[in-house]
Amino acid sequence: MKKNPPGINARPEDVEQAFYEAIARGDAEQIGKLWAEDEETLCVHPTGVRLTGLNPIRESWRSIFASARLRIQVESVAHWQSTVLAIHHLSETLFVGDDPNPRGPLYVTHVYTRGPHGWRLACRHASAADDGQQALADGVRHTVH
Amino acid sequence: MKKNPPGINARPEDVEQAFYEAIARGDAEQIGKLWAEDEETLCVHPTGVRLTGLNPIRESWRSIFASARLRIQVESVAHWQSTVLAIHHLSETLFVGDDPNPRGPLYVTHVYTRGPHGWRLACRHASAADDGQQALADGVRHTVH
Repeated sequence: MKKNPPGINARPEDVEQAFYEAIARGDAEQIGKLWAEDEETLCVHPTGVRLTGLNPIRESWRSIFASARLRIQVESVAHWQSTVLAIHHLSETLFVGDDPNPRGPLYVTHVYTRGPHGWRLACRHASAADDGQQALADGVRHTVH
Repeated sequence: MKKNPPGINARPEDVEQAFYEAIARGDAEQIGKLWAEDEETLCVHPTGVRLTGLNPIRESWRSIFASARLRIQVESVAHWQSTVLAIHHLSETLFVGDDPNPRGPLYVTHVYTRGPHGWRLACRHASAADDGQQALADGVRHTVH
């Protein structure tokens, strides 16, 4: 089987798999290599912090990995794909350090773009899920403070 | 100038404008008409509630409008577009009822798809922003509970 040259991801799924593997290893350098080198590149963390540009995004992951080891279980919910764009919407369950109790879930939208170096991550939007039966109307009044 | 037939949106921007106009009018029927009729259609509200499918999404907006009148100011942050897919990432500032104080901001990712009826909204992912200097590492430990 012919392997892709290093750094070339033939499919959005390859980037996604490499992203979660890099998280499990705590490898911020590798995470940086998976993102498009573009000023519009952005990452919304579940804390509500939004970062734009490759360097701030990589440093944010370095900061996360410095404080905790993470493993993420992923469930695919929806996806849309064209020849140069792909969107994956996922649910993530987090495991932090040696704690066997799952945290989250998170709802995550990933945007991938295809450029000269194959597919890269252009946008990650992650937010905390509420699986409860909270009234949406309450949410508008109280959560959006 | 030739106008588009009713319900046909020639550009993703047309859908987006119609979406915010429908919110300002509290018009859940019109919001339903802007979404793709597809099982993968989904909407993540800033409360952390995720809805899939056109009917639950429309009903959630009906419930929101029953409790509050909303006006949303939008700032465009990033966008990606191909012939059949478009992604807009935005900041939203909310005004609820007659309260002149802005709420939010929200960070929002919109996915648009082009089908036989022109461009439609396929996915809205909205979450509360944290503009403060909260440590990301703290966020991983405490926010993702």
